[in-house]
Amino acid sequence: MRVIVPFDVSTPKTSLADVLTPSEREAFARASLTDVLDALTTAGHEPTVLSTAPIDLDWPVHVDERALTPAVNARLATADGPIAIVMADLTLATAAAIKRLTAPDTDIVFAPGRGGGTNAIVVRHPEFRVDYHGVSIRDHREIAADLNASVTEVDSYRLSTDIDTPADLAEVLLHTDGTAATWLRDHGFAVRADGGATVVRS
Amino acid sequence: MRVIVPFDVSTPKTSLADVLTPSEREAFARASLTDVLDALTTAGHEPTVLSTAPIDLDWPVHVDERALTPAVNARLATADGPIAIVMADLTLATAAAIKRLTAPDTDIVFAPGRGGGTNAIVVRHPEFRVDYHGVSIRDHREIAADLNASVTEVDSYRLSTDIDTPADLAEVLLHTDGTAATWLRDHGFAVRADGGATVVRS
Repeated sequence: MRVIVPFDVSTPKTSLADVLTPSEREAFARASLTDVLDALTTAGHEPTVLSTAPIDLDWPVHVDERALTPAVNARLATADGPIAIVMADLTLATAAAIKRLTAPDTDIVFAPGRGGGTNAIVVRHPEFRVDYHGVSIRDHREIAADLNASVTEVDSYRLSTDIDTPADLAEVLLHTDGTAATWLRDHGFAVRADGGATVVRS
Repeated sequence: MRVIVPFDVSTPKTSLADVLTPSEREAFARASLTDVLDALTTAGHEPTVLSTAPIDLDWPVHVDERALTPAVNARLATADGPIAIVMADLTLATAAAIKRLTAPDTDIVFAPGRGGGTNAIVVRHPEFRVDYHGVSIRDHREIAADLNASVTEVDSYRLSTDIDTPADLAEVLLHTDGTAATWLRDHGFAVRADGGATVVRS
């Protein structure tokens, strides 16, 4: 299946500005992207990165300077078969989770994100278009319903977890062992039991 | 399978104090508990509520005034077969998610919670004991490893989501239609698209 991984080169993870410098955020975002691409590749796909600017990667890169929604919709409009859109900050993604995403043969498959997002979508309906603004899972359900498209939602903690905030780093450290987790450990991050799971840096 | 649902009657959901009055928190906690018990019952189980004080419910109640960890471990010590412990605030639980929890036949099955918790556990090993203090998923993995117990972790967004904070209410409103979601809607709560998914009350 054709898989698109959108990636914003210009402002990686400003929501992590309290704990990471700009260059660290860039390195961490790259590490997360690598984890997602690794999971997709292990699951048997050949992902393409849909990037806002040229970047050097071991995977094919398609550059589109536009915002996320129009850039993805341009890919959907020219797709000649099933296509998946998987967010670049799903650092917890595994090949098993990706296989659960692509297994249902409905017109549309959603992996909802925590906080109303849509972290991954499989599109087998030629008219479906995305709208990532706002509470996108609600909007995407409506768009699919308007098309009378059949829909499955995949119940995955790993795919629901986009790494956005400093607290999210605990999820990476507790549940993954990939490039991003290694990067965090190499840069002094750890999870301390402190009432809950508190991320600390040494 | 024997299923235990621990429920703390005394201090329900103080973390929601900014948006719900004490009596509303109690009603919402009961509604969430009902959703969990409904999901377990639909999945074919006969859950028992392990409550800190007597409560009136349509399901059997076992009262144990002790804290969560010793109360659950007392049930594990007297179990004569497989036993599951499912948290009462997994408002998003469905029968399908519960079936994924009980399907693996390993000694232990974990459903990790966001933030380092362990939201559900299936125990088929006579010596396994819980420790919910701190980063419990990390501790539980170690306890299982020390016993050489076989372990599966279930990748479920629904089981990973315990409803703790005001922001979590968006998850209930966006992804469920049960007793708790109905209670929230009846009490004026809705999700507004406002950058993200913002919970508002009218």
